[in-house]
Amino acid sequence: MVLEKFNQPLGPKSFPLPKLREGDILVKIEAAGVCGSDVHMWEGRDPRTRLPVILGHEGAGEILEMKGKKGDVYGIPLKPGDKVLWSRGVTCGHCYFCKVKMEPSLCPHRFVHGIHTSCAEPPYLTGNYAQYLLLDGRSDFFRVEKNTDLASLVPASCSGATVAHAFDLSGMESGDSVLVQGVGPLGIFAVAFARSLGASQVIVVGGTEGRLEMCQSFGASLLLNRHRLSPEERRTAILEATGGRGVDVAFEMAGEPEALKECIHAVRNGGACITAGFGEPHGKIELDCFQDVGRKNLRLQGVWVSETRHTHMALQLVYTRLHDFARLITHRFPLNQADEALRVMKSREAVKAVLFPFAS
Amino acid sequence: MVLEKFNQPLGPKSFPLPKLREGDILVKIEAAGVCGSDVHMWEGRDPRTRLPVILGHEGAGEILEMKGKKGDVYGIPLKPGDKVLWSRGVTCGHCYFCKVKMEPSLCPHRFVHGIHTSCAEPPYLTGNYAQYLLLDGRSDFFRVEKNTDLASLVPASCSGATVAHAFDLSGMESGDSVLVQGVGPLGIFAVAFARSLGASQVIVVGGTEGRLEMCQSFGASLLLNRHRLSPEERRTAILEATGGRGVDVAFEMAGEPEALKECIHAVRNGGACITAGFGEPHGKIELDCFQDVGRKNLRLQGVWVSETRHTHMALQLVYTRLHDFARLITHRFPLNQADEALRVMKSREAVKAVLFPFAS
Amino acid sequence: MVLEKFNQPLGPKSFPLPKLREGDILVKIEAAGVCGSDVHMWEGRDPRTRLPVILGHEGAGEILEMKGKKGDVYGIPLKPGDKVLWSRGVTCGHCYFCKVKMEPSLCPHRFVHGIHTSCAEPPYLTGNYAQYLLLDGRSDFFRVEKNTDLASLVPASCSGATVAHAFDLSGMESGDSVLVQGVGPLGIFAVAFARSLGASQVIVVGGTEGRLEMCQSFGASLLLNRHRLSPEERRTAILEATGGRGVDVAFEMAGEPEALKECIHAVRNGGACITAGFGEPHGKIELDCFQDVGRKNLRLQGVWVSETRHTHMALQLVYTRLHDFARLITHRFPLNQADEALRVMKSREAVKAVLFPFAS
Amino acid sequence: MVLEKFNQPLGPKSFPLPKLREGDILVKIEAAGVCGSDVHMWEGRDPRTRLPVILGHEGAGEILEMKGKKGDVYGIPLKPGDKVLWSRGVTCGHCYFCKVKMEPSLCPHRFVHGIHTSCAEPPYLTGNYAQYLLLDGRSDFFRVEKNTDLASLVPASCSGATVAHAFDLSGMESGDSVLVQGVGPLGIFAVAFARSLGASQVIVVGGTEGRLEMCQSFGASLLLNRHRLSPEERRTAILEATGGRGVDVAFEMAGEPEALKECIHAVRNGGACITAGFGEPHGKIELDCFQDVGRKNLRLQGVWVSETRHTHMALQLVYTRLHDFARLITHRFPLNQADEALRVMKSREAVKAVLFPFAS
Repeated sequence: MVLEKFNQPLGPKSFPLPKLREGDILVKIEAAGVCGSDVHMWEGRDPRTRLPVILGHEGAGEILEMKGKKGDVYGIPLKPGDKVLWSRGVTCGHCYFCKVKMEPSLCPHRFVHGIHTSCAEPPYLTGNYAQYLLLDGRSDFFRVEKNTDLASLVPASCSGATVAHAFDLSGMESGDSVLVQGVGPLGIFAVAFARSLGASQVIVVGGTEGRLEMCQSFGASLLLNRHRLSPEERRTAILEATGGRGVDVAFEMAGEPEALKECIHAVRNGGACITAGFGEPHGKIELDCFQDVGRKNLRLQGVWVSETRHTHMALQLVYTRLHDFARLITHRFPLNQADEALRVMKSREAVKAVLFPFAS
Repeated sequence: MVLEKFNQPLGPKSFPLPKLREGDILVKIEAAGVCGSDVHMWEGRDPRTRLPVILGHEGAGEILEMKGKKGDVYGIPLKPGDKVLWSRGVTCGHCYFCKVKMEPSLCPHRFVHGIHTSCAEPPYLTGNYAQYLLLDGRSDFFRVEKNTDLASLVPASCSGATVAHAFDLSGMESGDSVLVQGVGPLGIFAVAFARSLGASQVIVVGGTEGRLEMCQSFGASLLLNRHRLSPEERRTAILEATGGRGVDVAFEMAGEPEALKECIHAVRNGGACITAGFGEPHGKIELDCFQDVGRKNLRLQGVWVSETRHTHMALQLVYTRLHDFARLITHRFPLNQADEALRVMKSREAVKAVLFPFAS
Repeated sequence: MVLEKFNQPLGPKSFPLPKLREGDILVKIEAAGVCGSDVHMWEGRDPRTRLPVILGHEGAGEILEMKGKKGDVYGIPLKPGDKVLWSRGVTCGHCYFCKVKMEPSLCPHRFVHGIHTSCAEPPYLTGNYAQYLLLDGRSDFFRVEKNTDLASLVPASCSGATVAHAFDLSGMESGDSVLVQGVGPLGIFAVAFARSLGASQVIVVGGTEGRLEMCQSFGASLLLNRHRLSPEERRTAILEATGGRGVDVAFEMAGEPEALKECIHAVRNGGACITAGFGEPHGKIELDCFQDVGRKNLRLQGVWVSETRHTHMALQLVYTRLHDFARLITHRFPLNQADEALRVMKSREAVKAVLFPFAS
Repeated sequence: MVLEKFNQPLGPKSFPLPKLREGDILVKIEAAGVCGSDVHMWEGRDPRTRLPVILGHEGAGEILEMKGKKGDVYGIPLKPGDKVLWSRGVTCGHCYFCKVKMEPSLCPHRFVHGIHTSCAEPPYLTGNYAQYLLLDGRSDFFRVEKNTDLASLVPASCSGATVAHAFDLSGMESGDSVLVQGVGPLGIFAVAFARSLGASQVIVVGGTEGRLEMCQSFGASLLLNRHRLSPEERRTAILEATGGRGVDVAFEMAGEPEALKECIHAVRNGGACITAGFGEPHGKIELDCFQDVGRKNLRLQGVWVSETRHTHMALQLVYTRLHDFARLITHRFPLNQADEALRVMKSREAVKAVLFPFAS
């Protein structure tokens, strides 16, 4: 399914299967996640998009053909027929960020199939909203057991991994109190990670009752509906739950400046505010240098995308709660209904939609 | 020397020597540092000040009398006649910050002799601009070898310790490039710490040529005078020095919102901006959520005061470069010239002034 | 209940209630944990014991009387009638370990009521196998909600806290594979902590089928009975479960040199082996400098006792699984059956025994 | 210069210049370091050696030809004529160690030109004791300014990087006391790193007076000659220098079990012992589980080789003290005297020898 013009329906198109170069891996896509960022790209709000494009950066499927030997992240030799999930980011492996600072997510050469690629030139098949995808040989793979529901796993490669990155940078400790702002896939993964890392309590602020309830099923201990409670009432509730100190760590997963501001104000002195919600330009915040930062001994940490190590963490988390994460996938569509999938993501009817390119 | 009214000269006053309770330690002050914060308190800009007050929170001297047994931080038993330096903050030792998070600087019961104390009631002698000081039994001590120049050590207990705290929170690694904004005692200590922790280069932005030169003697590799170079020229110089990436860690030590903003913009993706310059309310900054924080994977860390462990670090740094740090003390006065000392600190004629209560 | 001679029955004895000094807190003990170390002290194998002694260093109960103001660790003001649990270690708060390295567990002045104390002199009531206990004013408290089962909480103050310390030092990351050697209270807490910190799998080696099953209920994913499997079979099972690499982190909780050796050999290159089982002298291990340490890039970490921050972590863990931890307390006795409690701990019939001094 | 038989002289041999594949880089070697490990390989003591072999894994020189685009670690585009140093280890970039644990030094596919390579088959030119070397395209490069003394830099790529790795794993903090065992290149780099990272004191144990003096010039504060002082006298001296506690961190850089044992015993409770001296099988140590590990809360950390990030750290350190590090190179030889270079390294006449393949 190809996006030719922003805000227009995607259209089906056929491309020749590519001839593989050394290292290349051709996969048959069995489940492709539809991400909130895809909606932004569809609308032309993401400066990285080059038309025409096959969208889709979250996928899992079967290896059809590979040129050269390759193992998965755990060292298992890969072969055609294997079910696999892949890390969405491809990085150079040799720059200051990849090799000195060990932060490949910041590699200036990083690219993602389905985001930075265009299908205007060969090898064409570079996005996940398709039946086949040619993956760069530097991609990282996770072999998956047959009979696993691949749709439940795909969110681990994007929102799950980004949230893993957020927790990796958070310094959160066992016994900490945690606040999560936002109840989309990022927020829900944040609740699950907080619980899986020993949070003593997980407070969630969101605007959709059904999603707040889903957060509860993942372990949230206090739900604050921002349509029912004023900012002041939410603040009071958070202080009451934390002995008047504020939370140890707050996670901004909503992508709204107001949510970030609320997180900063909800954090105790010396606490951390981690913000992973801003995937595209969207607003500013004002901070009082003394009150909000210095006197507070605040740590404010931005999070940009994720790394293979975070996909590993997210995947391991999903495996421990496979049944719960299956419920995250509220909508499932065949490939030719990609438009409808984007629509339910945009309208927030869906928590997460997944496309099935080979659905009959 | 007592401050009775804000902005008025300090006046000499006599108090009875106190009767010690269990744990108390009475010291004879031989060197009292004059801090930039003292100027703010003198001017009534610090909300913590309760009049009348004996100012002065940086001191070193001799133990005159002590009730009960006590060792210094290194376990050396203390006795009258010992030369000592003390940590300025006294903390409760039993709260969430002292015992769970191991961040006593954030203890809600923390107080500092000469800042939070008033001399309106017993034991009166609670500040360092005096000949004698009664120290709370929970104070932490560092025994000092006889014949050490105490004046060179006192800055370690305040600006030195605060900068140690900043580096402790910075995550700076061996080989990192460092930017320091500000060339007062905080900035100069930051240059010295950066060098002592393996910085590959130390870039300094300041407005006083003489202080920039002092930074150079402490190891700065690039001096940027903000009166001679525009913000854009400074930014260009920083990018040139860092392969176009920006610095790994920036330290804001000037207490100006513009300096903090410049630090954030000078940091590479994934880098850290540490701000220790805001000791009192002074302005705001605006951050673009995506550009300055999220996409940048920025870490912004506020620093509030310091802990005994940081006084240790600062003191050990000073010992390794005692001659250099003696030059930091540009002005020395007898106690009755405390007003003059505050004046040269306010006018920035002095880098650091020290009072000698027993100067003849 | 007083221990007058090693290996002899404890005898009941009455002492006068003490007169409180400033800071002291007198508590009525409602639940006193019986620890494996108590058995060692009873047998005279712990060099710290001074006879006669009231054993017992794990307790919870009600504040009867207090002199002076005091808050609990979370800042809640304490008052007579409050239910509380306390940290077993009292530390000086001012030495190199307490204030520079922030490792109060290593404070040379550290002491524990019921371990380092004797009841030969006032205030006599210094152990937990008693109806009343006088706590040093430097003790740290956790207020507990009324109606909480105190017996379920007491292990958090000793074995739970020690295991929290082990994990705090372990560097364990989300998604790691974990091995636990030992299935006593330490081992069971280790399984629970591993799960609560995001372990992808938790492998347990133990010798008692019932305890292995308890480990499973706490989240163990693979049980290896050392009476049924040879060391080589166990090693094979561990390698199979970890893609041939070995586990990321191994926790030695058995106090046996062979168990420690097995842990080291089960760890992957670059992994960590944490040993918390040796509370008293008990054997040696031999390491090949190249094979076991250098080439392996091993991290071997010893763990000595714990700190208040670890009691906090253990307590928060217990609160999230109160029902499971209640099952850890397999035996409950009135105070006068302390001998029987020690006997079932020694024979390993009990996982954990608790005494109830006011049981009717 | 080719090693055909162990313990035999190396012989000159000519090979055809290879035809480059995509990514390959052919360099002209201008300085090749002679490492203590080369002596072990020469003697057949290193199991990795496959004969015939061109030894030499430390090098710097000029790019002669390259196929494809490539930047150095700092992002500077490389081109023929550039002077460069390279990381000795080539890693896969996609396995559990490279991408999940960010510890590429442990990559099971890691290889080093001049260690794991044989010159029996093409491309032949795979070691640094030669005029030309063909580097795998996955090698990491550091561009070097023209006119830099390349000989002074080469140790940064092996012993310097290994020591950087040791400090990276050490947790050493500003103000810590440090012990270094061993006075070869590893030990000398350890002294320099300790000083550059804020050690308050650096105690060195060694057996060669001249090398101890070199350590002093790099910042050692206390020299203990093990031929003049008994183990007990050394221990007493260390305790005296550290207030009776022992050092905060000890670095074993001698590769002797006795040295490792002495390090462990010299460390304070809660301190760290880092061992990087064992590059090949050589002996065992015995540890008392309680006394040496548990009660001591010891951290024992093995160090295996190094990563590109450590070469960066070592190189930046060398740049700050270029003059001092030039003195480390006590012997310089033309390529055809490689045997003599190995001899003076083996006899320990040389601290460090460097070969110059194009010396006239």
